[in-house]
Amino acid sequence: MNAADPLGLPVTVPSTALFTDRYELTMVQAALRAGTAHRRAAFEVFTRRLPEGRRYGVLAGTGRVLDAVTNFRFGSEELDFLRERGVVDEPTLDWLAGYRFSGSVHGYPEGEVYFPGSPVLRVEGTFAECVVLETVILSILNHDSAVAAAASRMAVAAAGRRLTEMGARRTHELSAVAAARAAYIGGFDATSDLAAGFRYGIPTSGTSAHAFTLLHDTERDAFTAQVSSMGRGTTLLVDTYDVAEAVRTAVEVAGPELGAVRIDSGDLLLLAHRVRHQLDELGAHDTRIVVTSDLDEYAIASLAAAPVDAYGVGTQLVTGSGHPTCSMVYKLVARADSDDPAAPLRPVAKKSMGGKLSIGGVKWAARELDGDGTAAAEVIGTGEIPAELAGQELTVELVRAGEVLAREPLEVPRERHRRARAGLPLSAAQLSRGEPVLPTRYA
Amino acid sequence: MNAADPLGLPVTVPSTALFTDRYELTMVQAALRAGTAHRRAAFEVFTRRLPEGRRYGVLAGTGRVLDAVTNFRFGSEELDFLRERGVVDEPTLDWLAGYRFSGSVHGYPEGEVYFPGSPVLRVEGTFAECVVLETVILSILNHDSAVAAAASRMAVAAAGRRLTEMGARRTHELSAVAAARAAYIGGFDATSDLAAGFRYGIPTSGTSAHAFTLLHDTERDAFTAQVSSMGRGTTLLVDTYDVAEAVRTAVEVAGPELGAVRIDSGDLLLLAHRVRHQLDELGAHDTRIVVTSDLDEYAIASLAAAPVDAYGVGTQLVTGSGHPTCSMVYKLVARADSDDPAAPLRPVAKKSMGGKLSIGGVKWAARELDGDGTAAAEVIGTGEIPAELAGQELTVELVRAGEVLAREPLEVPRERHRRARAGLPLSAAQLSRGEPVLPTRYA
Repeated sequence: MNAADPLGLPVTVPSTALFTDRYELTMVQAALRAGTAHRRAAFEVFTRRLPEGRRYGVLAGTGRVLDAVTNFRFGSEELDFLRERGVVDEPTLDWLAGYRFSGSVHGYPEGEVYFPGSPVLRVEGTFAECVVLETVILSILNHDSAVAAAASRMAVAAAGRRLTEMGARRTHELSAVAAARAAYIGGFDATSDLAAGFRYGIPTSGTSAHAFTLLHDTERDAFTAQVSSMGRGTTLLVDTYDVAEAVRTAVEVAGPELGAVRIDSGDLLLLAHRVRHQLDELGAHDTRIVVTSDLDEYAIASLAAAPVDAYGVGTQLVTGSGHPTCSMVYKLVARADSDDPAAPLRPVAKKSMGGKLSIGGVKWAARELDGDGTAAAEVIGTGEIPAELAGQELTVELVRAGEVLAREPLEVPRERHRRARAGLPLSAAQLSRGEPVLPTRYA
Repeated sequence: MNAADPLGLPVTVPSTALFTDRYELTMVQAALRAGTAHRRAAFEVFTRRLPEGRRYGVLAGTGRVLDAVTNFRFGSEELDFLRERGVVDEPTLDWLAGYRFSGSVHGYPEGEVYFPGSPVLRVEGTFAECVVLETVILSILNHDSAVAAAASRMAVAAAGRRLTEMGARRTHELSAVAAARAAYIGGFDATSDLAAGFRYGIPTSGTSAHAFTLLHDTERDAFTAQVSSMGRGTTLLVDTYDVAEAVRTAVEVAGPELGAVRIDSGDLLLLAHRVRHQLDELGAHDTRIVVTSDLDEYAIASLAAAPVDAYGVGTQLVTGSGHPTCSMVYKLVARADSDDPAAPLRPVAKKSMGGKLSIGGVKWAARELDGDGTAAAEVIGTGEIPAELAGQELTVELVRAGEVLAREPLEVPRERHRRARAGLPLSAAQLSRGEPVLPTRYA
């Protein structure tokens, strides 16, 4: 039943090589036999459309893609599995055993915004070495970019108030780690998820849940226990029983130095006003109010006028606020006619059916600016980039001859995203449904 | 920036212990100091409602929960991280270092259906040893059950036709593995995801993509390459250029023994009829038709009258067909008043606000049957189960004194789900939005 230790980690896949659809490997087998596997090829990642009503996309996951490409190795466990199940033949297993990606990757830098047609990643090498990366690259970019896009909208709505990602319990335990990373890039400040702190160094936060209050004989006992352990600067949860009574008890226990109170249910707008008023009356002017109940970007925006200091967002963030995945695809756009490394690349494309736009050829992309320096269009073309757009080129080199050129601390894509969003037309900040804020123009 | 090797696997968390919200550990710290950490406690997992319009829920992930509980261990890497970041104090780190779950777990068996209020899992032990498991348990059950519920609806719609899960590229690379597992429990027959085959022994399938056709100079070259490598029984993709021409070429190349053709775009109903007609005219009566374009349970149902033999489902399956997460919660329902192991458990509950129903006390659950043996109600209560319901009790013992009692091969929950669904009223098979097919009754 199981090639891995049943008592091992929930998933004990020792490399990224099996995060792969079976057909990627069977295509390699058939191409090896046909003598076409080593034709040079270029694959591009793009999406034909943004999720309905969204104004811009946010590219996240590129850093994880670089790790995944580096770790795409078939060890003996993987090869034994493929052999036992008869997935591919021996010549293919031999080729997989020696697999090291030796090609190049170009793409939009992580955190950049994108639009329909934007070539956010391009992978070049032999057909075989590129095609096998399709599944894992799409998994990462489709997931992470979906979360980053939701995070970015929430960050716009929060308008500078602190945002904490707390959706781990609403998504797969490892999605949660990637979601916290993507949310941080999109503008969140912290995560509840310790694994995300461990793996990516994202600040973690959180103090207590209703269970902690219920564990104790009285709410006062619970608050006293928490303050004596975590200090007066802690955040007390005040909606287990009666909010007004809890706020009174909280300030009695912690004094006006109480760090914050958290409200996790009820009419947040009304409660925030009442609690702020009560805290001020009690002299706790610096005690902050944190709200955490089923928030999304619209709920956050609706609380803009409320005296809320910080938001905790779970479900709607990690599920992409209605759009849990992007529709990015990984398409062969050019290939050589022979396996001569010097053979030129020739554009290829599937015939358009059902409105699926496919444009062959390796593409460049640039963001055209208006006179004020605000983005005006996403311009995409093949061949040479026009001189007047060369300064606005979006694509950068990420991997050369199989070597990752640069890894970035997360603060870099996070700041890049902030700048990229700030460079969009003002309508990008509208939460209402509408068209992409930039038109895509094919040069 | 990073406690883990940046060139390691995309996520190098060596145990499940950090798939945990920070507040679980700070609660332990405060409770340890207050002397309340070792009070006996019972936590229950349940959902207050099904996703809107859904008729039943499908419990999946229990097997993964058992692995997660077993592997919930704080090693030196995790403890160093918690110490360096000041997450908890030294007495808490000492307690975490010795952590082994020693309590009990009861729950619905995996694959069982559930309804609002169903206590699908119960974790008992000391408060501290139970509370830390909250996040990872909910991550697993909320994710896996969302996918299983979508899979079950698709299996109903497919009415026995073969179903392949192929959504890996639309979700996080490790979610994909769990999604394939949940889909298999829900009624799918195979997955495209090799990691799911490796980890869980699920049958894998897949042959080729459009890129394979585009790699070759002609479609005939591509088909010839595939058939000579994979045999006549392979599945040829026929919608890269012109479907009718491709079908003709496919049968010329492979002969009437051709295994299947796959259609991935266009009007599937129309195309399936045309292709079936054409295959029959060419004498390829046994060549199957596989369709794979943006399917969900409604699209599958709409193809019931079409000559389709198999469906491949991606995006809508792994994203729960509109409901990518369940709303399961993990609530303290009872606890002792002291840390005396003999102290009785006392029901506790958060005050109901905003329609959140919380019932204190450890619960039993039974499925009441009508005269024909069809399920009639989900009956939930506290205290002793009434004698007339004892034979229909749903909860089983999963972990005793920290030891997992039984692990099941995936075929067991898969078959259990099939039987459980078959035991529901006929309206469970309706895809239209409606109320849960069973009322939840509190005894």
